[in-house]
Amino acid sequence: MKTAEKILLTSLEMFNEHGEANITCVDIAIELDISPGNLYYHFKGKEAIITALFDMYVKRSSKILVSPDSESLSLSEFFHYLFRLLESTHLFQFIYRNPNDLMQKYPTIERNFKRLINSKEEAFLAILHHFKSIDAIAANESQIDALAQLISLMFTQYQNYFLLTGADIEQDDVSFHCLRLLFNVLTPFLSIPNNEKSAIWLAITEQNI
Amino acid sequence: MKTAEKILLTSLEMFNEHGEANITCVDIAIELDISPGNLYYHFKGKEAIITALFDMYVKRSSKILVSPDSESLSLSEFFHYLFRLLESTHLFQFIYRNPNDLMQKYPTIERNFKRLINSKEEAFLAILHHFKSIDAIAANESQIDALAQLISLMFTQYQNYFLLTGADIEQDDVSFHCLRLLFNVLTPFLSIPNNEKSAIWLAITEQNI
Repeated sequence: MKTAEKILLTSLEMFNEHGEANITCVDIAIELDISPGNLYYHFKGKEAIITALFDMYVKRSSKILVSPDSESLSLSEFFHYLFRLLESTHLFQFIYRNPNDLMQKYPTIERNFKRLINSKEEAFLAILHHFKSIDAIAANESQIDALAQLISLMFTQYQNYFLLTGADIEQDDVSFHCLRLLFNVLTPFLSIPNNEKSAIWLAITEQNI
Repeated sequence: MKTAEKILLTSLEMFNEHGEANITCVDIAIELDISPGNLYYHFKGKEAIITALFDMYVKRSSKILVSPDSESLSLSEFFHYLFRLLESTHLFQFIYRNPNDLMQKYPTIERNFKRLINSKEEAFLAILHHFKSIDAIAANESQIDALAQLISLMFTQYQNYFLLTGADIEQDDVSFHCLRLLFNVLTPFLSIPNNEKSAIWLAITEQNI
């Protein structure tokens, strides 16, 4: 692995574990056993590292966001898609720890971040409209708007919420926990046969999605 | 108004507007046109002010949390109760801006904060169980758990979410906006007559709750 890649992966791990605000470039250099000068050769300070990590996250999320061809998407594929988004968010969890602070500190990422969150909400909205058009969900316009906003809100904030409550959820299980929450709230809107509902629920609870 | 009270109200306003991290005791003294020494006479530093404000918030919320006698609560009363909680949260919005940071910085409030959030989630759970027992909502145990968690998550995080998306919501309308969201997500679970549903929706949309 190239040094620049190593720096990014180690930074990501340290930011996720200790919070971005508590890690300096020197900490990262020490962890990697390289000189601060060597680190600086690859990244001109912490902002450059944060920006590179954020770009990785946006690229990854955009791929997921674009991929579901909403015209042919099935409900079980939708939950698979939600799961991939949750896993991607979990991998870059430091971004969501104090996103408003992060944007204030690094204005370069602010616009892209706002755009990413809004495009997520719009993607949820488009997908829910698609399900309504093929009669897979029964919901009026206000309900679809509310669901899209609530799903998006949950995606960006669940981590902070679980930190707040001190909920005892295994790190490996966080994405599935969120998926179970969403499924439970969405079920009464789903107008698909019960055996299809059960199949999705089974895939989620058996973590086989 | 006594000086101590004036200090608290001015601090609350300044924290809400600019964020707790961006306001010092000297800023507060200047705004009040009193000497830093006079402020220090009443509150020994920012931590003392934060703690006093947090106590005010807990006292206020606990009153709301305890008040609904879940045995006789109706659904329209429940939405009224949610509205009062939202308004109270909005009044002390600085607490929810970066709650995890706040707890790290002021460990004295950490335990009380965790307790407050968890007692909110438990209150929602108890109320939803009550509605199930009187057949006002149709939901299984997992759905009730999910709804209680999602309502609670929304309560603590909506502010940060709207900041993130840059959603254009008037400050005065934030609580009603959240209430509309919740109502829309809850409707398919409600097994009350349609005219009762419409009456609640009307009260929410006409901001007459």
